[in-house]
Amino acid sequence: MALIVQKYGGTSVGNLERIENVAEKVIGWRARGDHVVVVVSAMSGETDRLIGLAKGITPRPDPRELDVLLATGEQVTIALLCIALEKRGCPARSYTGGQVRILTDNAFNKARIQEIEASAMRAELDAGRVVVVAGFQGVDEDGNITTLGRGGSDTTAVALAAALKADECQIYTDVDGVYTTDPRVVPEARRLNRITFEEMLEMASLGSKVLQIRSVEFAGKHNVPLRVLSTFQEGPGTLITFEEAFEAETMEKELIAGIAFNRDEAKLTVLGVPDRPGIAFSILGPVSDANIEVDMIIQNIGRDSTTDFTFTVHRNDYERVLEILKQHAAQLGAREVSGDTKIAKLSLVGIGMRSHAGVASRMFQALAKEGINIRMISTSEIKISVVVDEKYLELGVRALHEAFELDKVA
Amino acid sequence: MALIVQKYGGTSVGNLERIENVAEKVIGWRARGDHVVVVVSAMSGETDRLIGLAKGITPRPDPRELDVLLATGEQVTIALLCIALEKRGCPARSYTGGQVRILTDNAFNKARIQEIEASAMRAELDAGRVVVVAGFQGVDEDGNITTLGRGGSDTTAVALAAALKADECQIYTDVDGVYTTDPRVVPEARRLNRITFEEMLEMASLGSKVLQIRSVEFAGKHNVPLRVLSTFQEGPGTLITFEEAFEAETMEKELIAGIAFNRDEAKLTVLGVPDRPGIAFSILGPVSDANIEVDMIIQNIGRDSTTDFTFTVHRNDYERVLEILKQHAAQLGAREVSGDTKIAKLSLVGIGMRSHAGVASRMFQALAKEGINIRMISTSEIKISVVVDEKYLELGVRALHEAFELDKVA
Repeated sequence: MALIVQKYGGTSVGNLERIENVAEKVIGWRARGDHVVVVVSAMSGETDRLIGLAKGITPRPDPRELDVLLATGEQVTIALLCIALEKRGCPARSYTGGQVRILTDNAFNKARIQEIEASAMRAELDAGRVVVVAGFQGVDEDGNITTLGRGGSDTTAVALAAALKADECQIYTDVDGVYTTDPRVVPEARRLNRITFEEMLEMASLGSKVLQIRSVEFAGKHNVPLRVLSTFQEGPGTLITFEEAFEAETMEKELIAGIAFNRDEAKLTVLGVPDRPGIAFSILGPVSDANIEVDMIIQNIGRDSTTDFTFTVHRNDYERVLEILKQHAAQLGAREVSGDTKIAKLSLVGIGMRSHAGVASRMFQALAKEGINIRMISTSEIKISVVVDEKYLELGVRALHEAFELDKVA
Repeated sequence: MALIVQKYGGTSVGNLERIENVAEKVIGWRARGDHVVVVVSAMSGETDRLIGLAKGITPRPDPRELDVLLATGEQVTIALLCIALEKRGCPARSYTGGQVRILTDNAFNKARIQEIEASAMRAELDAGRVVVVAGFQGVDEDGNITTLGRGGSDTTAVALAAALKADECQIYTDVDGVYTTDPRVVPEARRLNRITFEEMLEMASLGSKVLQIRSVEFAGKHNVPLRVLSTFQEGPGTLITFEEAFEAETMEKELIAGIAFNRDEAKLTVLGVPDRPGIAFSILGPVSDANIEVDMIIQNIGRDSTTDFTFTVHRNDYERVLEILKQHAAQLGAREVSGDTKIAKLSLVGIGMRSHAGVASRMFQALAKEGINIRMISTSEIKISVVVDEKYLELGVRALHEAFELDKVA
């Protein structure tokens, strides 16, 4: 008898028919003898409707009260799911974040979970009930309602799984797992049976929007086995697991887990700055002061005592960053500031590449064969990212998918 | 500096514009130096929408979960009102029933308030904040969310006023006070400046749907001065007050406070039952077992050792009661069971009639003058009710309003 925490997102509970479908699924798991804790999001569209109400009063609603408002979205879903379960004769009980006591800090709208009281849930499970918990919300020490920010229901599910020492945390969504890359770009893209937490983190942060990054980090930190699967079709999904276990089980490890890509970025280059200590800080300090996040950062070896410094930001921040750099260019002694928004980032991700040489050269070769010029390169232990012209995005992803034979099971 | 509890119903907070209007009103009171606690209902239509969702799953939703669902309606309003107050620079903080700690019993869907924790609200008021509380909801001892049943927000407001020892509890609604009768029937109907709790109870239970009966009872019991007034137009409204204070202030007491009427009832008669002890119970026992409420009950002196027994029920229950009576008729030894749904009840209500003879005869005379036949009569200390054919309802109300000169201030 296993203890399973399941999370169903907004699309999975988007209308009454779908909520009843989730009830059927939950009952199916329970029939196998498992204990089930279910975490649900607000019905799709509901959070936006509530934000619309608040914004109808003021563009900057009071953060505490915004959380009081938004928390109702998940509260509606927990009640409806329990009603659907009880109707089917399955004993169930709903819990708001405050009722479980999911204790968070008091950073309204983006609170972090600090502690979860598991005893009430355990008692319900022991009494044979399904426990249905509102995702995305908690309470601070003073009993104020808080929310974890968008997508926080994944984090709730993982945190509950950790607190309950669950055997598995299942994230139900509208895709049936994690793919080697986006099937809309590469029709041969293959669902992965397993992926490591590290790989998943790189895949998620690079634009494969299956899971909240925070929830993956949390799961990895607390050793919670995480499975992504579809609400709408049967299948094993993708298990996100620990490297050790993974390596022990598979004789030949896959070199590359998948290819992530991202076209939300823009690059900026400060040309001809003096090649001296502190220059990186002088350039990025004002950007960071403006609360703008920087992704890739590249500085090559200097020439003639000057160097070129390039970095990427979210495309929405491009104009602001360009302005900041121009303001500081003279002071930096820079020759010129330039930028480009028509770029795309392609990333190969794989735990396996750590111990295999030649991945990078094979990647560059595959891109060269298609005549794709590489503008920037950045590498980490388990990832190689390149920036190319946006128009080459799809071609590049397909070329890499084929070159690394990702359509075939290793 | 007074402490005022205000309650705004669903129509008063029916959209964002109206919520902003309520914020302005609250700020107006606060500007006078008063401490203000505001109780709000769900936005009009919201509770019905939520019930519709639950009923979309099953006609008999789990009671505990229905309360979890319905409680979100008021939670949305408290957040939006606080957002509107804070936007105007007025410090405000929202409280759900559970956050205040409005402790109720665990009768889901129709819980009763047992205790209110006033300390958190007092601290907020002392800190200069407006406190906005979700009406209609509480928590039981185990922390389960409960609701007080329809219209329960009035009860919340009165209970908070009692717990806080407020100077006045103001119920804002879409009418500007309590009238001598329905102005749609009698254009000359006059707004009462004051009415006693007892009169208000009789008026409310007889169909003048300005206030929840339970909240009036509660206010009377806890000596909370209650004022009904309009959200949409300025004016003093009607103060519902204690008889003693009332009598001391007014030299000449008004004989009649007003005329209530009701066309929701149906009457049933069991003819020719044996005139012996226990017969009333034999007839009404099965009706009460079916959870049907009985209003007027009349049994006249018997003839030939049999008697006729008549009572009224809500018109929706008529068919069921008729069936029950027919099932039991033989066993009762009754000659016949008959009934009529085309009836109306008119009631004169007034503390004054207690010490004045002749009110009843004046009433009967006024009705006789218009050729209205009286089918049933029932009296209490401060009320005389008659049942007439439904078609005479308006004529009867107008005749009585004129006969007792209710359009003139006494």
